[in-house]
Amino acid sequence: MPEMMKAVVKAHKGSGFEIRQIPVPNIGPDEVLVKVGAASICGTDLHIYNWDEWAAGRVNPPIVVGHEICGEVVDRGSVVTYPEIGDFVSLESHVICNTCSFCRTGLGHLCENTSLIGVERDGGFAEYIAIPAQNAWPNPPDLPLEIAVLQENFGNAVHTAFAVDLRAKKVLVTGCGPVGLMTIAVARAIGARAIYATDISPYRIDFASRMGADLALHATEDQVIELIFEATDGEGVDVLLEMSGAPSAIDQGFTLLKPGGDAALLGVAPEPFTFDWNYHIVFKAAHVLGISGRKLWQTWYQARGLIRSGAVDLSPLVTHRFKLEEFDKAFETMASGDSGKVMLTP
Amino acid sequence: MPEMMKAVVKAHKGSGFEIRQIPVPNIGPDEVLVKVGAASICGTDLHIYNWDEWAAGRVNPPIVVGHEICGEVVDRGSVVTYPEIGDFVSLESHVICNTCSFCRTGLGHLCENTSLIGVERDGGFAEYIAIPAQNAWPNPPDLPLEIAVLQENFGNAVHTAFAVDLRAKKVLVTGCGPVGLMTIAVARAIGARAIYATDISPYRIDFASRMGADLALHATEDQVIELIFEATDGEGVDVLLEMSGAPSAIDQGFTLLKPGGDAALLGVAPEPFTFDWNYHIVFKAAHVLGISGRKLWQTWYQARGLIRSGAVDLSPLVTHRFKLEEFDKAFETMASGDSGKVMLTP
Amino acid sequence: MPEMMKAVVKAHKGSGFEIRQIPVPNIGPDEVLVKVGAASICGTDLHIYNWDEWAAGRVNPPIVVGHEICGEVVDRGSVVTYPEIGDFVSLESHVICNTCSFCRTGLGHLCENTSLIGVERDGGFAEYIAIPAQNAWPNPPDLPLEIAVLQENFGNAVHTAFAVDLRAKKVLVTGCGPVGLMTIAVARAIGARAIYATDISPYRIDFASRMGADLALHATEDQVIELIFEATDGEGVDVLLEMSGAPSAIDQGFTLLKPGGDAALLGVAPEPFTFDWNYHIVFKAAHVLGISGRKLWQTWYQARGLIRSGAVDLSPLVTHRFKLEEFDKAFETMASGDSGKVMLTP
Amino acid sequence: MPEMMKAVVKAHKGSGFEIRQIPVPNIGPDEVLVKVGAASICGTDLHIYNWDEWAAGRVNPPIVVGHEICGEVVDRGSVVTYPEIGDFVSLESHVICNTCSFCRTGLGHLCENTSLIGVERDGGFAEYIAIPAQNAWPNPPDLPLEIAVLQENFGNAVHTAFAVDLRAKKVLVTGCGPVGLMTIAVARAIGARAIYATDISPYRIDFASRMGADLALHATEDQVIELIFEATDGEGVDVLLEMSGAPSAIDQGFTLLKPGGDAALLGVAPEPFTFDWNYHIVFKAAHVLGISGRKLWQTWYQARGLIRSGAVDLSPLVTHRFKLEEFDKAFETMASGDSGKVMLTP
Repeated sequence: MPEMMKAVVKAHKGSGFEIRQIPVPNIGPDEVLVKVGAASICGTDLHIYNWDEWAAGRVNPPIVVGHEICGEVVDRGSVVTYPEIGDFVSLESHVICNTCSFCRTGLGHLCENTSLIGVERDGGFAEYIAIPAQNAWPNPPDLPLEIAVLQENFGNAVHTAFAVDLRAKKVLVTGCGPVGLMTIAVARAIGARAIYATDISPYRIDFASRMGADLALHATEDQVIELIFEATDGEGVDVLLEMSGAPSAIDQGFTLLKPGGDAALLGVAPEPFTFDWNYHIVFKAAHVLGISGRKLWQTWYQARGLIRSGAVDLSPLVTHRFKLEEFDKAFETMASGDSGKVMLTP
Repeated sequence: MPEMMKAVVKAHKGSGFEIRQIPVPNIGPDEVLVKVGAASICGTDLHIYNWDEWAAGRVNPPIVVGHEICGEVVDRGSVVTYPEIGDFVSLESHVICNTCSFCRTGLGHLCENTSLIGVERDGGFAEYIAIPAQNAWPNPPDLPLEIAVLQENFGNAVHTAFAVDLRAKKVLVTGCGPVGLMTIAVARAIGARAIYATDISPYRIDFASRMGADLALHATEDQVIELIFEATDGEGVDVLLEMSGAPSAIDQGFTLLKPGGDAALLGVAPEPFTFDWNYHIVFKAAHVLGISGRKLWQTWYQARGLIRSGAVDLSPLVTHRFKLEEFDKAFETMASGDSGKVMLTP
Repeated sequence: MPEMMKAVVKAHKGSGFEIRQIPVPNIGPDEVLVKVGAASICGTDLHIYNWDEWAAGRVNPPIVVGHEICGEVVDRGSVVTYPEIGDFVSLESHVICNTCSFCRTGLGHLCENTSLIGVERDGGFAEYIAIPAQNAWPNPPDLPLEIAVLQENFGNAVHTAFAVDLRAKKVLVTGCGPVGLMTIAVARAIGARAIYATDISPYRIDFASRMGADLALHATEDQVIELIFEATDGEGVDVLLEMSGAPSAIDQGFTLLKPGGDAALLGVAPEPFTFDWNYHIVFKAAHVLGISGRKLWQTWYQARGLIRSGAVDLSPLVTHRFKLEEFDKAFETMASGDSGKVMLTP
Repeated sequence: MPEMMKAVVKAHKGSGFEIRQIPVPNIGPDEVLVKVGAASICGTDLHIYNWDEWAAGRVNPPIVVGHEICGEVVDRGSVVTYPEIGDFVSLESHVICNTCSFCRTGLGHLCENTSLIGVERDGGFAEYIAIPAQNAWPNPPDLPLEIAVLQENFGNAVHTAFAVDLRAKKVLVTGCGPVGLMTIAVARAIGARAIYATDISPYRIDFASRMGADLALHATEDQVIELIFEATDGEGVDVLLEMSGAPSAIDQGFTLLKPGGDAALLGVAPEPFTFDWNYHIVFKAAHVLGISGRKLWQTWYQARGLIRSGAVDLSPLVTHRFKLEEFDKAFETMASGDSGKVMLTP
């Protein structure tokens, strides 16, 4: 084992990252050391890179960033019985306490003591990462690296799409960033009758069609309301999967939602906004679900099932690949909006 | 059968009602004629009385008002097989079409062709009312008139409280008008662990305690957030039953709701308002349900079950009684906020 | 409209049918007259043909048989508002009362006054059939006749597969008659991770693979238990869809079911049998659902969704086609077990 | 801390127990040592006492028996952070692995590596017991000892009654041993409309009425089917809670179950038996749930809620009290059938 490694580090408050040589981390008794095979960039990483208000309030530099990671277990602590050294694993980024009432009732994704890898403890845009053994998800050895690394983010799409019943239903996906695109693929795989999608990026609108949307529209330039009512014989959609956080998209989505319809909400809004409570929820008898992270670990099992059966093919999502040292170019690509998932390899 | 009857009529646009002599209504082939035994006043009636914006947009005078009604079936149309003449019935106020996709899938309460008794067709603040046979709910002959007449409104409380699982849970009821008060009684009957309630009327706050609330607070004068967090060991509540429609109460309710908690919303807001989407729903993984009317007819069966078993006693709800002719006094009492349910008898 | 028509009739107690000239039926005020476009044979029809114990106890000859029917509405009664004359419709075979507590709570498929078309009232192996308007399901005009006629039976498959959550799950289908085969197609369409199937007919085992089973086994000649445990890494299956009614298949299915697994049961057993209550249900915490008919009318909407989106292609199911006059040959084919669905056309 | 303690031990294969002086157990790093405050006898203990076929196949003497235990934490291992020394705790008897797929998906009660306290590892009919920290459930200090000790067994009742929706429903409880009796109390607390109960012990039939059954019948001497159909206006019951395991009671229960009804099964049958699959499950569209143990730890939270709110009072269940040394008399009492719960104190 080397003593030092390279890592992408948030070194100081303010925008940007640095690449540094730092010690390979030590592991605690219940941790494993993972040699990073591949990493991918999440929207969260971009917030930390840009050092926006959220990041400034949550991140304490210096910290190694990055939490979408896969790699090989190369060492493990004294009380770890699983996974084995040599196992090929992906990482779950939420470190949970196992003892709060949420953890004790199967709701670990709501753990009140959650710590986030790459945000509140060192992440994995590096050659090695130390994580609790329970955060390592063993993969079949033959799973491609790029699919393995996407599973964590894919889990958000699975969690959202599986939160409602969309079998034989008409579904609207608002927001076609990478998670929205994966959500379209999941909705297709589990039997949605029709999938409508909106975004404001022509690149992503086109991408949505390729991932399986029957109709992909520009949220502000197309007549979204009219066109989707027309496509649904005036009925609207049974299910809204809200991935954008944009108040105007949320308003469109709930306007199009049928009475009694289901809405699953993953998108984060920039701030509180004015919402038509009566017509969008109460009178409509809407069923609205906030979605947070992944169900631990049901979502991972579900994601595995979709990938292993071939029902969902994530490979088209990977559009750009960079070396760790090229992180600035990678983040620039990600920020442009004209990308799917951007890979980083050590 | 007499030819003429007295009825409380919205005769013209503008505020107020009149009492008039009008013909006893004819019945269609699928209708029954009910001799009204008792009626009660709903918040909706007050809107029509006051002729607010909602009423002005929905009601076409002249029309007989009133939809919380019970009485005896005295005639029935040619194709009616049920109920029988002589049956003692309560009325469901939503007349549904039976043919739209909602009606055909057990979601009649969302029927897209709903017509409301006392709003869009003649109501029952009168000696007789004609209604579709399927809107008549047969009661046991020994059910007290005042309980029978309350069942329709009670159904809103049952629908709301039954929409979520509140067994052994901590529950907050925001808004203690008559439906809120009945909701407290239902929550108690079906095993809530603790019930917290808020309102802005001292009369209703006191009433809430008598209906079974463990802690009833003034929504603006008490330290609601602090006191309920304290009462719940800092955890907040598992379930929010929102009966007020007040944006400040909604904000309090969602602030107190635990991550992963359930919120059932019956209260109607005065207008769209600013809402903290991220913290109140998305991050919290809240499960939010708009509640509309009563499930047809599950809610009626459930309401019957609670009443017949003695699990809920509605009699304390009836606080005032007037003759039909005293409708002005009755509406004044209702408008004061210092009342439970107000009865009108022909 | 002609006065007389040909029809396949159960004329007397005992086995076999006759083809007869009988009057075109009159319609009641709430009925429609359908000119039959296509019909298909159900297992129930075979029971009536063979005059087994069940049939002898339920059917009162003379009666026109057949209930899987589609065709054109050519006349309608005085109170019918829907469907229109000229509409292309499929038939739901359960005539329900709309007034019992099941019908009034969205459980019409459990109506306590159900009458079965082709069993308890005249069916549609004929040129015309009179049915209640609500039993006519309007199809898009361009739906192929053979797909339209299959929807009723397909509804059993949809009802069964939709009764449980099989998204990303491992599923065992025991019994690969036509409904079992359609169930495999549905499970595939709504995201099953892997589908295992068993039958005792080589023809059907082969058919199961073509419909999407990952592994189709002979229930008595293959080592079913061993092979499916092996295919599932020793875990067994998450979901059992029991379509055979064979006690030995039921025992295999529950042996393979994982703890906490779901079993949906459509297959009808020849008689009561010995069942390992503790190990198959109680200790295993199994979740077992009896499936009866189709949900009225949710299942029809779901079936439509799967067909219209192309998620399920029913056309391979149609393996044989006969004219009404060839009913004996048609029933012989059906009885052989070496068929999918057998079509009859007037 | 003393070095030796008294304990009730299954010393050899064959019937009976012995009281012995044995060393106070050592604790592992993740365990706590509990000074036993009270214990109660479970049916399982009786099987071990009698050394029936089940016990002979599962228990390896010598072993300390007993798993319904409460007491004070007097020591804890090096990695334990919760509970604290001095905490008053009750025990969950299933020791689970936390790593199998069941444990990782919130289904710990189905853990494939479960070890049972008092069956597969030393139990608590003793002065001290060592258990994993996670199996200790902290109680409020003021909870009476006898209520604290009953919680584990009460959890079976809660798990069963909470597995279905019995709000405003008619419920049949077959089998009125202690868990059946507690189930009646739970059903009453969470809003059952009517509760019918059967047993074959006059003592327990009488006890059932005192716990809240509206009608308690002798399963073989009363006309159960006729009387319960009569009490339910010929409809039967909405919910069956099967606590007896007796094939004849199961047959009665399913005969009385309404179409579409729910059955939760906790009772263990003496052996496989003949069951009317078609009429009891398939045609009836019954929804049948096997119940195993308690949900970890949701059931504990639910049980706590019912007890702390006063919705369920368990104190009438405690009918007999013995010292540890009097275990033979205690088991004799328990075996007689004329008891509620039998307490043992060190």
